[in-house]
Amino acid sequence: MTDDVVRAWAYLSRVAEPPCRALKALVARVGAVEAADRVRRGQAGDAVNEGVEARRHIDSAARDLELLAAMGGRLVTPDDDEWPVLAFTGFGGIEGRLRAQAHPPMVLWVVGPARLDEVAARAAAVVGTRAATAYGEFAASELAAGLATRDVAVVSGAAFGIDGAAHRAALAADGLTAAVLAGGIDVPYPAGHSSLLRRIAEDGVLITEYPPGVRPARHRFLTRNRLVAALAGATVVVEAGARSGAANTAAWARGLGRAVCAVPGPITSSASVGCHALLRDAAFLVTRAEDVVELVGRIGELSPEEPRAASPLDDLDDTDKRVYDALPARAARNLDEIAMAAGLPARQVLGPLATLELCGLVRSRDGRWKRALR
Amino acid sequence: MTDDVVRAWAYLSRVAEPPCRALKALVARVGAVEAADRVRRGQAGDAVNEGVEARRHIDSAARDLELLAAMGGRLVTPDDDEWPVLAFTGFGGIEGRLRAQAHPPMVLWVVGPARLDEVAARAAAVVGTRAATAYGEFAASELAAGLATRDVAVVSGAAFGIDGAAHRAALAADGLTAAVLAGGIDVPYPAGHSSLLRRIAEDGVLITEYPPGVRPARHRFLTRNRLVAALAGATVVVEAGARSGAANTAAWARGLGRAVCAVPGPITSSASVGCHALLRDAAFLVTRAEDVVELVGRIGELSPEEPRAASPLDDLDDTDKRVYDALPARAARNLDEIAMAAGLPARQVLGPLATLELCGLVRSRDGRWKRALR
Repeated sequence: MTDDVVRAWAYLSRVAEPPCRALKALVARVGAVEAADRVRRGQAGDAVNEGVEARRHIDSAARDLELLAAMGGRLVTPDDDEWPVLAFTGFGGIEGRLRAQAHPPMVLWVVGPARLDEVAARAAAVVGTRAATAYGEFAASELAAGLATRDVAVVSGAAFGIDGAAHRAALAADGLTAAVLAGGIDVPYPAGHSSLLRRIAEDGVLITEYPPGVRPARHRFLTRNRLVAALAGATVVVEAGARSGAANTAAWARGLGRAVCAVPGPITSSASVGCHALLRDAAFLVTRAEDVVELVGRIGELSPEEPRAASPLDDLDDTDKRVYDALPARAARNLDEIAMAAGLPARQVLGPLATLELCGLVRSRDGRWKRALR
Repeated sequence: MTDDVVRAWAYLSRVAEPPCRALKALVARVGAVEAADRVRRGQAGDAVNEGVEARRHIDSAARDLELLAAMGGRLVTPDDDEWPVLAFTGFGGIEGRLRAQAHPPMVLWVVGPARLDEVAARAAAVVGTRAATAYGEFAASELAAGLATRDVAVVSGAAFGIDGAAHRAALAADGLTAAVLAGGIDVPYPAGHSSLLRRIAEDGVLITEYPPGVRPARHRFLTRNRLVAALAGATVVVEAGARSGAANTAAWARGLGRAVCAVPGPITSSASVGCHALLRDAAFLVTRAEDVVELVGRIGELSPEEPRAASPLDDLDDTDKRVYDALPARAARNLDEIAMAAGLPARQVLGPLATLELCGLVRSRDGRWKRALR
């Protein structure tokens, strides 16, 4: 990209509140430079003009790009190889209020070594309430660490609570993590996460639709959530109260045809109410990172079964078990006694007794049987 | 019933290990007295003869009935008004090993003031692991108490852990509770629950298919579980490890077309592994007694929505919210400033500002707007 093209993108990024479908369509049609020119002159067509009217006089593109360069960042556009596949195509599932926002980003401000296309190719969102419990933070850390060690990028929103725990655990596991911001790339939010955001910028990637200096605001968090969901193959809600932004991210994931997962928690915890609501609404119940890998992983990459304690009685059929149960814990019994205790004809007891003896569960001596010591 | 009929039933109850389909069919065809006579003479047909061969020489009916009478109990047969509707008719859902056991009981030994038909008309099973955690016992108590106060009988198996907590809470709430035993009505099992069983016999009801003196055994617990599930409109598994009898009760409930419910718990708790497995397998997620009442209750008896904290912003549309968000926390702004912050044309901001002012969320003065103190 030449400098004027980059400057045009940077200018366009600020003139309309994302997502602005009309502006994105104009850029796709005539290119960024021509689109920027038309916007500046107020000749971009009614739909675009309305979206840009309040801000088209602002052109801080050069300064914004300087700031981005100083942070070591880049502007990523749909023309770049790195542009991620976001699957904003079929919106059958997007309902009501979400529909107006159901559009891909126009351009992304990015800082960090990870490539967006590689992140999106194998990523899970791990999100949840800021008011997380110790349980929730633990669960988020375990999941994120497990995902990171299985080469799944952990996408989240850098908020306090669950988001922060997820990012931190992914970093600690030397994994890939991406934070999608609801404000400018230079606006550390929340301020208490400044150093976490710096670490993500160094080892993972910070992503935002908003140009430098933009403050996060309620509607921007909701708009941002759609990007979190779109970047990830699955969205895992670890803890969420009855009113949580995480439910909004989950709604986006569902609308975009991505898997929605939730971590169960104690019914006594208000921080799990939102997760239980999602589980009632057909979310995948997730207890281990493997459960999520299965959903975002390469085809054929299935999670191993959870380990189960085995009992030597598992492989016996019901009659064998019934005969085994008919033997007292320690004493020996003759055939008739065993038959009576089992409620089976004597001739039907001999076969099972032989089986049990072969399995080492029963020993016989002088026509009497007893349980083998175990 | 005349004495000889009752004695015939008592005799038949012991000669075959329940459930014995062939014997039950014979009794239904020729009556208890004639069936008992044929069994005694070894002339009950091959299918029955095989089932009774080991025990048909035992006749302790008179002594068993004396013991039952001394406990203040009764033998309940399909001929009694009290016989519960158990819906063992359509077994489409019963698979594999369960199928051989998928038959109604022949006769029930019962002690306690509650009528079986009334219990079964409005009951929920609350079951789970003996190795319950404090969380599980608390959840079981809360659920059982909530069910009891809503006139739902609490059915369980009187085991340590979840079962015991459920029975105790139902009793404490002056509710109805039924314990289904895996041994004789006179065999307190577990012994540590002797006094609990006595209280259930006084205020609720003890139920068993097994004649007096029969010791609980592994296969009898599984057989008993089908009765727990059959008596209840819904089965709630509160805690269950990876290998738990509660999963067996749940399988019975599903097979019998009854609702299967599970209480979620921490993913860090091995006592919730079985519940999470059930939830993955389409069990109802239950957090409150109301959730269960809805499943076993009279038609139209729906649970109220869980209370949610309301925000005055809930009813606003997205543009109103966006304008509200464009106002800083304390300072006042003029129309153009608000329009720019919101990214909307100034003329589209006036309407939302008027709405917000009407709602008391915003105040205006001298062409400037600010958030109202809340």
